Amino acid sequence: MPYTAPVRDLVFACELADLAGVARLPGFEDATPELLRSVLDEAGKFAAEVLAPLNHSGDRRGARLEGGRVVTADGWRDAYRQFVAGGWNGLPFDPAFGGQGLPWLAATAVAEIWHAANMAFSLCPLLTQSAIAAIEAHGTPRQRDTFLPKLVSGEWSGTMNLTEPQAGSDLSAVRTRAVPATTSADGDHHRISGQKIFITYGDHDLTDNIIHLVLARTPDAPPGVKGISLFIVPKFLPDNRGAWTRRNAIETLSLEHKLGIHASPTAVLGYGGKSGGDGGGDGENGGDDGGEKSENSGAIGYLVGEENRGLMYMFTMMNLARHAVGVEGNGVAERAYQQAAGFAAERVQGRADDNGGGGGERVPIIRHPDVKRMLLAQKCRIEALRALSLTVAANIDHARRQPDAEAKARARDLLEVLTPVIKGYATEVGVENVSLALQVHGGMGFIEETGAAQHYRDQRITPIYEGTTGIQAMDLVGRKLTADGGAATARVIARIRAECEALGDADDQDITVMADAMRAALDLLQAAAESLVAAAAADARLPGAVAEPYLRLWGVTACGWRMLKAAAVSRAELARDGGDGGDGGDAFYRHKIHTAKFYFAAEMPQASALAEVIGRAAPLIADAGADLFEVA
Amino acid sequence: MPYTAPVRDLVFACELADLAGVARLPGFEDATPELLRSVLDEAGKFAAEVLAPLNHSGDRRGARLEGGRVVTADGWRDAYRQFVAGGWNGLPFDPAFGGQGLPWLAATAVAEIWHAANMAFSLCPLLTQSAIAAIEAHGTPRQRDTFLPKLVSGEWSGTMNLTEPQAGSDLSAVRTRAVPATTSADGDHHRISGQKIFITYGDHDLTDNIIHLVLARTPDAPPGVKGISLFIVPKFLPDNRGAWTRRNAIETLSLEHKLGIHASPTAVLGYGGKSGGDGGGDGENGGDDGGEKSENSGAIGYLVGEENRGLMYMFTMMNLARHAVGVEGNGVAERAYQQAAGFAAERVQGRADDNGGGGGERVPIIRHPDVKRMLLAQKCRIEALRALSLTVAANIDHARRQPDAEAKARARDLLEVLTPVIKGYATEVGVENVSLALQVHGGMGFIEETGAAQHYRDQRITPIYEGTTGIQAMDLVGRKLTADGGAATARVIARIRAECEALGDADDQDITVMADAMRAALDLLQAAAESLVAAAAADARLPGAVAEPYLRLWGVTACGWRMLKAAAVSRAELARDGGDGGDGGDAFYRHKIHTAKFYFAAEMPQASALAEVIGRAAPLIADAGADLFEVA
Repeated sequence: MPYTAPVRDLVFACELADLAGVARLPGFEDATPELLRSVLDEAGKFAAEVLAPLNHSGDRRGARLEGGRVVTADGWRDAYRQFVAGGWNGLPFDPAFGGQGLPWLAATAVAEIWHAANMAFSLCPLLTQSAIAAIEAHGTPRQRDTFLPKLVSGEWSGTMNLTEPQAGSDLSAVRTRAVPATTSADGDHHRISGQKIFITYGDHDLTDNIIHLVLARTPDAPPGVKGISLFIVPKFLPDNRGAWTRRNAIETLSLEHKLGIHASPTAVLGYGGKSGGDGGGDGENGGDDGGEKSENSGAIGYLVGEENRGLMYMFTMMNLARHAVGVEGNGVAERAYQQAAGFAAERVQGRADDNGGGGGERVPIIRHPDVKRMLLAQKCRIEALRALSLTVAANIDHARRQPDAEAKARARDLLEVLTPVIKGYATEVGVENVSLALQVHGGMGFIEETGAAQHYRDQRITPIYEGTTGIQAMDLVGRKLTADGGAATARVIARIRAECEALGDADDQDITVMADAMRAALDLLQAAAESLVAAAAADARLPGAVAEPYLRLWGVTACGWRMLKAAAVSRAELARDGGDGGDGGDAFYRHKIHTAKFYFAAEMPQASALAEVIGRAAPLIADAGADLFEVA
Repeated sequence: MPYTAPVRDLVFACELADLAGVARLPGFEDATPELLRSVLDEAGKFAAEVLAPLNHSGDRRGARLEGGRVVTADGWRDAYRQFVAGGWNGLPFDPAFGGQGLPWLAATAVAEIWHAANMAFSLCPLLTQSAIAAIEAHGTPRQRDTFLPKLVSGEWSGTMNLTEPQAGSDLSAVRTRAVPATTSADGDHHRISGQKIFITYGDHDLTDNIIHLVLARTPDAPPGVKGISLFIVPKFLPDNRGAWTRRNAIETLSLEHKLGIHASPTAVLGYGGKSGGDGGGDGENGGDDGGEKSENSGAIGYLVGEENRGLMYMFTMMNLARHAVGVEGNGVAERAYQQAAGFAAERVQGRADDNGGGGGERVPIIRHPDVKRMLLAQKCRIEALRALSLTVAANIDHARRQPDAEAKARARDLLEVLTPVIKGYATEVGVENVSLALQVHGGMGFIEETGAAQHYRDQRITPIYEGTTGIQAMDLVGRKLTADGGAATARVIARIRAECEALGDADDQDITVMADAMRAALDLLQAAAESLVAAAAADARLPGAVAEPYLRLWGVTACGWRMLKAAAVSRAELARDGGDGGDGGDAFYRHKIHTAKFYFAAEMPQASALAEVIGRAAPLIADAGADLFEVA
């Protein structure tokens, strides 16, 4: 199925996210709408011609483990080579390390295109990007100089190694060990031993080296999350002459057989296992995972920053990765939506505006009301989430570069609250969207060759990895709400409220209806936040019980905020054109207003239902014992 | 993953559905709770020991087409043999044809167990059951005597052949031809030629013969749905000595490669194709599909009832099949829920009642609030839908056997309205439930070996086949609402209201809250129905645009009706035991009240949101042109 990058809407959403304000930040002076459009046009072309055509074949073929090495699907290597040659990998990174120095806002708009065109492919640069962020923020100058140029160019890729069989959402249970050592060849380093699972692109044949970022415990580390350190563990180490050809003691033990993203290799990695005695070869001179290691066994790894602060450093990566996964969920939804709309425009079935009785011409199903409903639902959610996630991206730029301390603090507040919302809500809604896209196809949707089923399978991981929706929701009610008594949350709500109030002044019935709905939703959100702060004080079990509906209430309200602004801007543009929002003026703006109105008619009503759930369900959840769930 | 039939809740739900009233119908005198329980115990044993263990292996292996014949997955043939030997296939059918003569209510409770244990397997008897219903209702005495005994026993299986590549939801486009003919061997018959797709169990190796029920057009048939006739087309015809060994001209052209239910063969069937000249052999003396057929080419088929009334006859099958698919969706959800609850009880991760900060003992995740929320959501929906679908099943029995004309008419009213609701709502909610069940597993849910992903894939067909949710919704607002100006719908609402009001009299705060919520929801439902009747008169496009949220409003309200009754009955049982609904009394009833309260706290709030969508979204959908959905 073809894919067309929604360039105009991406540019529109970036402008809505205050691209102009981002372009006033130091170093981003070139980030004009014109530059953005030309970058997106080029990205869209590359995505349509190179990445999108490999999406279905990659799913069919998958990545394979052959003789201990991972082989990517046909065409993958060539596509990655072109991706790197085009300079796409380094878009938002420091020019000092070879990056393009574009704002995170622009890079996020481009990233949506990669995710939509080929989610399994795009995970490789997504993980590399996270590794870059961690090394940039916490690595030594030498680590930065050694690893960043090749990671930024894409010559090497990166991974995140957190999970172990017994340590999933709960990283306090990490067992991988890191023993300090020194050799003339490798200087001060650690020997890493243990097993990591769920490692995305943990091995592959796209790059000459893979830089693993690994959480592990040093010998004297305290228990729990306060005893975890972060290590750089390259697949290949430098040899005597500085060429990165010496195999480190990392084995790819297996690849997971997954529901989706078959072309993205999800590896079980063994560090310092059978073949990993001294980090220098394939000999069986090491112990096995369970045994004690000598000082010289284990994979060679380099400590990042200080010992025992690994989890904090990992969060540097994770917050960006969480935002990126939200964008990914929305990108996959866009792809599925395009496929559904294309199918509906072609598939002739039934008669015009007919409930089944016959008569009238046979029409494509895109003219049937329930099909239009399903397409509109997808469209309004995707556009709202696009606008919201790009707004968050713009605030990432402000949080990094804004010289004004107050504005910077505002941006950080917003990021704190909205990062878990984007991750949790955009992926959950993304799953609903791809299911609707499949449904539009009727019986054909269930047939794998159609392609709709792949999106349904691929998308299902997005509410899980980088922290499940439950983990995001706990973050939102815990660290982001009750921890400071609701202060930061109240500031973000006030900021959104002020903007909505300003927009609602328009002498326009449609906008007024939306602004009224926003006022009501923000009242509900503020009341819910306050009730959860109070509940936490009374019974610590309660906020977590309704954290997920609270996250959804945030999502539906924040999306409304963006759709109100989108409608107001569109109305103004139409007025400037002399159009009236009826049949006159630029169709893009008329469609945007139509979509925003639908959002408020069909999505926003959830807000009051969610508020009611938040108000009523918590004690029933908290009081449910495990025996309630036994089969009667 | 093991499966335990929820026998006690099935018996409870049957009694809630007025098993006693069904047992007063002629011929059902033996249908006591004791009999039901023993039948369900036996079914549960067979499901757990024979069917459930084949579910995952069947998915892995799938059904295959080998040399023109379909081979089912390993173990399938033996399981089917045992299923038939146990008399399970004929449970609800006329003892005159070898059936057990049990009420549809009891057979539905048993069917949930088959669907839960092994959805792909259970589709074979489900389709046979539909074929039996059509032949029983519309076949000649000779057709009944010929086909029913072997279909009822399960010695033969049945299929439904509706869909063609150009005729999916719109059967007016059916092209398969049926030309009248007579021969000494086969008597009066038709020669059928054409291609049918999506034929569940269209070929397989479980039975000696397959009886296809096929929609086709006779030469002089009028166009559209009024020119479709129904034919019995057996895979094997009787030879000279009456043995059913003579191959009919039906070819299995291919099997679909599907998202789920891999072990259920979905066939493309060619009737009277290359190998189907005279219905008697494998010679290539026929034409191909596109060409004109001679009088003697085509598969031999026997007209059911009158010409051109085939679609009406097919609806006899379809209404039962639609109800059955709703039950199936809920059965698969039960299986997925059991797996999720089992996983959550075993998987240790995180600390007791802790939001991530450490401290406290490590606990199974079933003690974490968000996991409990996900399990409770599944549990309350499954139990509510079980109670509702069994209530509909009881009304199927009343509609057939109730001697009192008024009571019979009431039962038919309820069936008319609630059949599309069960099909549409139980399957849509079923998809949400299996997704939640997968989510409970975290990363393991995305790994195929865990098994949660299979339910997610399998379940996705249920809102599609036997009429998509959109088709159900159009039926609900069209034939079931606007066609009679809302009269039947109002009668059903009044019946539900009266029952809720009677229950709400209890001197019990919990019950009163539920009864109040039901009153509000029924008001919203009645108002929505009236508004759609009025809208239909003003603009025929409008009701279809919000038919789906209207169906959901029906679903959430009707489920509430059943949960209110479940809670009231449970409260009465506890009072009888001397328990107080606190820690005293039978845990089953305490859990039921807890679950019902959660249903009203967490699910019922949707009602007002849906009513708001129904009231606001229709014009925005109706006015959306196809250009709105083009990529900007």
